[in-house]
Amino acid sequence: MLAVTFDILSERARSARSSAVRDLLRLTEQPHVLSMAGGLPASEMLPVSAIRAASAEVLDRLGPAALQYGPTEGVAALRHIVAARLGGSATPEGTVITTGSQQALDLLARVLLDPGDVVVTETPTYLGALSALHWQRPRIEGVEGDHDGMRTDLLADRLAEGLRPKMLYVVTEFANPTGATLSLERRQHLAALAEQYNFVVVEDDPYGALRFRGVRHPPIRTWSDRVVTLGTASKILSPGLRVGWLTAPHWLARPIVIAKQAADLHTATLNQHLVLSLLSDEPWMKTHVAAIVAFYGSRAECLQRSLTVHLGDAVEFNAPDGGMFVWGHMTDPSIRTEALLNAAVEQGVAFVPGSAFRHDALDNSTLRLCFTTLNAEQLNEAASRLAKAATQTPIR
Amino acid sequence: MLAVTFDILSERARSARSSAVRDLLRLTEQPHVLSMAGGLPASEMLPVSAIRAASAEVLDRLGPAALQYGPTEGVAALRHIVAARLGGSATPEGTVITTGSQQALDLLARVLLDPGDVVVTETPTYLGALSALHWQRPRIEGVEGDHDGMRTDLLADRLAEGLRPKMLYVVTEFANPTGATLSLERRQHLAALAEQYNFVVVEDDPYGALRFRGVRHPPIRTWSDRVVTLGTASKILSPGLRVGWLTAPHWLARPIVIAKQAADLHTATLNQHLVLSLLSDEPWMKTHVAAIVAFYGSRAECLQRSLTVHLGDAVEFNAPDGGMFVWGHMTDPSIRTEALLNAAVEQGVAFVPGSAFRHDALDNSTLRLCFTTLNAEQLNEAASRLAKAATQTPIR
Repeated sequence: MLAVTFDILSERARSARSSAVRDLLRLTEQPHVLSMAGGLPASEMLPVSAIRAASAEVLDRLGPAALQYGPTEGVAALRHIVAARLGGSATPEGTVITTGSQQALDLLARVLLDPGDVVVTETPTYLGALSALHWQRPRIEGVEGDHDGMRTDLLADRLAEGLRPKMLYVVTEFANPTGATLSLERRQHLAALAEQYNFVVVEDDPYGALRFRGVRHPPIRTWSDRVVTLGTASKILSPGLRVGWLTAPHWLARPIVIAKQAADLHTATLNQHLVLSLLSDEPWMKTHVAAIVAFYGSRAECLQRSLTVHLGDAVEFNAPDGGMFVWGHMTDPSIRTEALLNAAVEQGVAFVPGSAFRHDALDNSTLRLCFTTLNAEQLNEAASRLAKAATQTPIR
Repeated sequence: MLAVTFDILSERARSARSSAVRDLLRLTEQPHVLSMAGGLPASEMLPVSAIRAASAEVLDRLGPAALQYGPTEGVAALRHIVAARLGGSATPEGTVITTGSQQALDLLARVLLDPGDVVVTETPTYLGALSALHWQRPRIEGVEGDHDGMRTDLLADRLAEGLRPKMLYVVTEFANPTGATLSLERRQHLAALAEQYNFVVVEDDPYGALRFRGVRHPPIRTWSDRVVTLGTASKILSPGLRVGWLTAPHWLARPIVIAKQAADLHTATLNQHLVLSLLSDEPWMKTHVAAIVAFYGSRAECLQRSLTVHLGDAVEFNAPDGGMFVWGHMTDPSIRTEALLNAAVEQGVAFVPGSAFRHDALDNSTLRLCFTTLNAEQLNEAASRLAKAATQTPIR
């Protein structure tokens, strides 16, 4: 019976796997584990009372309209405010509200990719992007990144050699997992390559507002019309509302709306109005985002200090300018971070091994540490436990 | 430039069209048009104050947990209550919360269908199902229905002749668009055919709670394990919350969850808790649903009476036992209902022509009339305007 039923699945469904991270997260949910594995916003920073008040206000003001079906492209006023916040070439007409930016990735993959088409991602990259892309069965080509983001020189070489992507995916600010920010020169280079080789750049920016220091570079779409920008309310307001957005050139926005109509009709009306209500209150947003930035900045420093104290030279890591992640590299080549995770969970600490963020899974030595959900004391204890795990054998 | 950019779209995106109904709805949104075209719940029946109270209660009780990321398969307590309400073989483990039941259709199409695979739908059928299916580029085979739903005798003939579907889609209670309810014998017959020919039956039931008269038959899954049941909060609570669900055999629930993870990570956490809160209050639900049923039952009668008064023999229609739609048939074979719609909009009334509900668009004489959103006086005026439109020439 099982064999028969399995045969009925589509080819994609038969080859699809649950993400390693999701499965790992299950293991690390035990209460004694100090988890730096998740990519969750800190619960303390979720604006419960503001959303409670906005919900009452929206339902009082709009009544049944807040609970009724809505247009597939999203609530007009929210599309306007999103386009205005993005600035530059962004228009309300090219803006589509999505069910989180995960859905934006899925819709873009659907409208751009046929099986076998080439997509370029940075290596390593956001796991959810890889999952969404995989459903269209493209050929995913990775281009290595460093502390300044994707190595566009390597990309240019590959393109010159004949690589012909339809789409390129990149997280520009404080990337997941590496925390790297794409340099100004590389943004300009990417835009020029997109124009020259006729591919669409998907510029994902979930973390841009969470900047601890330094100045933001202009987005890639400053220099090319072949760019789709993704944004989300998940990291600044609430991931549980599932409200994200994309801004695309008009010729691309139209098929995206048609795809979204088939996918879920539209994003929840009430949730769009909640996000609209909070984004519209600029003084409140400013204070709220400043509070998150101060909170995360302090935790990032804590984690870095604790890693230095407890692991010393055993780990190298970046000092991200914002976002939610520290990206580490175990200097002892005999330590494999997938094996280290098993030892770590035994010690009561968790992270995500770098292999999870590569389409080829070829990475043994790196690890992603999320610093948002543990306090100073917990981060110190987590680093201490990680150090213990790293001295255990065998961890290869 | 446009030609170049169009070429970059996937084959599916190039062939996808916005639904005719959605485009028509835009035309009929002028304030002077009495629209029976939409399939919207009556605004008066959307429980604004109950959802306002539930939102405050949920946020007070759960705090940040109501706004945080959640499991892809949905909030455990909601999956339990959905399975319990469905009864029979339904289990919480096989239940997945979806972003409306539109998403359930999209996920089922993804995990079951490769291009060219055969899907059977009733003719006519729900337009949103056709859109979701089309994205997987299957071969859609229609089987005609009558006042007792899909003609399973015709299906049995086609299967005996060699048709080999992977999936069959049917709305069992007060179908959209015909208002027909699948008879007991045909349910049993469908279940037997699914077992014999090894296909999955998708039994969609958005309207089942809206029964004006008569007794509900057992669902198809009573007689087969090869059935997925879809449900939704859209028609009994709020479509704008985008909360639906499916209950599937376990071997099928697993790939659906993997597909959903890539599609939108999970359905909005707050919205799931709102629906859970209202569904859990059984006395309130009973009163609330009884009020909707009385309200819609009265409007259905009004529309039928008004059609008889104003159109007489010019239209034949069913008297549905529940749901939101009256299905009409223009008796004058020279009247084409697509052309009639143009004349109708000029008269200030709107409906959906039957061709919109067929994958082959081969229907000239039928029309779907939604009776939920107009009051008695408006329904009478709408029928009067429709009669005027029907006497205009040319309407072919």
